[in-house]
Amino acid sequence: MKPTISHLELSLAEACAAITERIVPLEQECIPLTEALARVCAASTFADRPSPSCDQSARDGFALALQPLCADQAFAAFQVSGEIAAGCTTQKSLAPGQAFRIMTGAAVPTSTARVVPFEVCQEKDGKVLVPLAELARKQRHIRRQGCEVQTGQLLAAARTRLLPDHLLLLAENGCQALAVQRRPRVAVVCTGTELAQTGEPLLPGRKVSGNGTLLAALLETQHCTCVCCLTVEDNAERITALIEQIIERDQPDLLISTGGMGPGKFDLTEQVFARLGGVSVYNRLRVRPGRSTLFGLLDKVPFFGLPGPPPAVRLLFHELVAPAIVRLHGEEYSGGMLKKALLDDPAPLSQVDCTVLKGAVARVDEEGRLRVRLADRLEPINAIVHLNGEEGEVVSVRLIGPLA
Amino acid sequence: MKPTISHLELSLAEACAAITERIVPLEQECIPLTEALARVCAASTFADRPSPSCDQSARDGFALALQPLCADQAFAAFQVSGEIAAGCTTQKSLAPGQAFRIMTGAAVPTSTARVVPFEVCQEKDGKVLVPLAELARKQRHIRRQGCEVQTGQLLAAARTRLLPDHLLLLAENGCQALAVQRRPRVAVVCTGTELAQTGEPLLPGRKVSGNGTLLAALLETQHCTCVCCLTVEDNAERITALIEQIIERDQPDLLISTGGMGPGKFDLTEQVFARLGGVSVYNRLRVRPGRSTLFGLLDKVPFFGLPGPPPAVRLLFHELVAPAIVRLHGEEYSGGMLKKALLDDPAPLSQVDCTVLKGAVARVDEEGRLRVRLADRLEPINAIVHLNGEEGEVVSVRLIGPLA
Repeated sequence: MKPTISHLELSLAEACAAITERIVPLEQECIPLTEALARVCAASTFADRPSPSCDQSARDGFALALQPLCADQAFAAFQVSGEIAAGCTTQKSLAPGQAFRIMTGAAVPTSTARVVPFEVCQEKDGKVLVPLAELARKQRHIRRQGCEVQTGQLLAAARTRLLPDHLLLLAENGCQALAVQRRPRVAVVCTGTELAQTGEPLLPGRKVSGNGTLLAALLETQHCTCVCCLTVEDNAERITALIEQIIERDQPDLLISTGGMGPGKFDLTEQVFARLGGVSVYNRLRVRPGRSTLFGLLDKVPFFGLPGPPPAVRLLFHELVAPAIVRLHGEEYSGGMLKKALLDDPAPLSQVDCTVLKGAVARVDEEGRLRVRLADRLEPINAIVHLNGEEGEVVSVRLIGPLA
Repeated sequence: MKPTISHLELSLAEACAAITERIVPLEQECIPLTEALARVCAASTFADRPSPSCDQSARDGFALALQPLCADQAFAAFQVSGEIAAGCTTQKSLAPGQAFRIMTGAAVPTSTARVVPFEVCQEKDGKVLVPLAELARKQRHIRRQGCEVQTGQLLAAARTRLLPDHLLLLAENGCQALAVQRRPRVAVVCTGTELAQTGEPLLPGRKVSGNGTLLAALLETQHCTCVCCLTVEDNAERITALIEQIIERDQPDLLISTGGMGPGKFDLTEQVFARLGGVSVYNRLRVRPGRSTLFGLLDKVPFFGLPGPPPAVRLLFHELVAPAIVRLHGEEYSGGMLKKALLDDPAPLSQVDCTVLKGAVARVDEEGRLRVRLADRLEPINAIVHLNGEEGEVVSVRLIGPLA
């Protein structure tokens, strides 16, 4: 006899809020900068030095002091006193009447008034002739110390996912290691007596489970470590034992099961969850697919009971599991970020008592408008359309991949 | 004396076409399906079996033959002859008057006319009473063999980057390994006497090179293996020797250098490239930044000479290097895919003799329109605006990351 389980029914938005509220960000760890791409920055990092570190030449040319050696009506003459290449580590100094040949990026000598590009100067007999017009120009061809980054400026904010652009700033500031949030460890259990193990000969009535492969790949896109991905038959004792073993051995930060979520006598996930002492946050959603789906805590481990059909797993992963992962990563959860898009072929909806999720392909059209069409069955999707029975041509979509 | 090098000047579009034309896709390799996420499929893969593999029940209920045992005006009665769970590997058969209890996903017995859900039936004394109205319904609750995937159907096309959705289909079709294009091996050489090695104490006039970190991260986002990332001073002999050593030791499929691309006497990249026997495709672009930039072949290895400033490296990577990588991966290069977007604060342009590239932040606004604003100096970008001096509010943009 199946135990009676009471229903905790939520809308999709309520479910998202309930999930993210219960999830505690993971601890930090320190890693080399070279491994930090796509990790979440644990603490705001500020520049501890200016960039450039000193006043630099912005051109290959002559660095000049204010006073020339002599001048006529067209030119001022300076004594060429040496050359400064980029990377020269000796700080030079200019006396009145002096000039240094200088390369782009090199530290200008103290007392430099401006740099005049080679191409407008004439060099002869150890002197350089500079047109007076050049000396009158506003553009001095000097990049001031700190003009790009000032000491104390924010380089990467806490709870930000690190992009190549952040790593550039951190590297230039001399950062070689930094604190990031630990990657979530996620365990996947696919339930169903009909599921063949990978590589097993396929008997009639059996199928290869695609959910494990699908979820492992989706978890990879979300920067998680999939610590195990196992298949188990519809047997409450075996499922219970397997989950206990996984929690003990793999110490997951999140558990996902697929299948076993219907009302049938072989739908055992809720029963197993209750037997393991799980505390449900919801076990019903006003969402299709996903009406029968579970979220709760197994001791402190968040647990998602997803349905069996892979198209539903895919949609619910993006809608419910991804926000949980965002929180585990310590990122700010922005609450959904649905966009408005034009639907190519608006379809009338009969169901209006719940949110209907549809896999879709989004693109930007020639007028710069976001457009979306419902995907064919086998087509990869980059968006999920949310239908509530009230929409016309404009629908709400969640973008889950690059635009077509 | 710097050798004279003739100018091969191209527009950005011409440069892209010239690059992608010269790049040959890498060879294939066979890898496990579990490692295939984001790899490029080498050959089109078709289903070798239908899915579902047999006619299945779509509900928990009774599978019935056409003829009942007996019937009155409201109900037809059937003999309950057993139970079929999902995963049962024995093909059952129904005689007239028989019914089987059957679970969702289980193979229906031969001669099954329909499945009637448990909740509308009454079971009593080994018989099940089914309302006649149910037997008249169009919905038979049977998922036909092949209704999701038919034998011969395309699962993943050659030259496609494999997404979780592809891996799902391939896994369900029993695929455990597949042919993908080899990952490009890319070497990075940052030139500049002003560049400090990582960890070296920073002397005045020196800077930490961010380009190596930036390019390694960008290459990771483009699914390349960065085989080395080295810094070298502005010395033609040393740069030449280093590149020869890298080609010999690391066998890169692509080489990228930064710095040394100006007209100055310490700008040595072109000279080194010529000395190594490189054949230029272009060494001038009508693009800012990037006017002095180089692409050519070093024997058969494609070589990019990028400028030194990291903001220019970032933009030119996305505009010129990424298309080359797409081709190395064997993906179809679609020719650019610029989108139209509304620019928040249209800025007048003085330069109109070339394409001006600007880092930008793109978003979809509340009306579903693509909008873009020019980025602040330290801000990570997700788009590149292409300005040609003729635009008003609408500009061309390349999207390079998820929308804000």
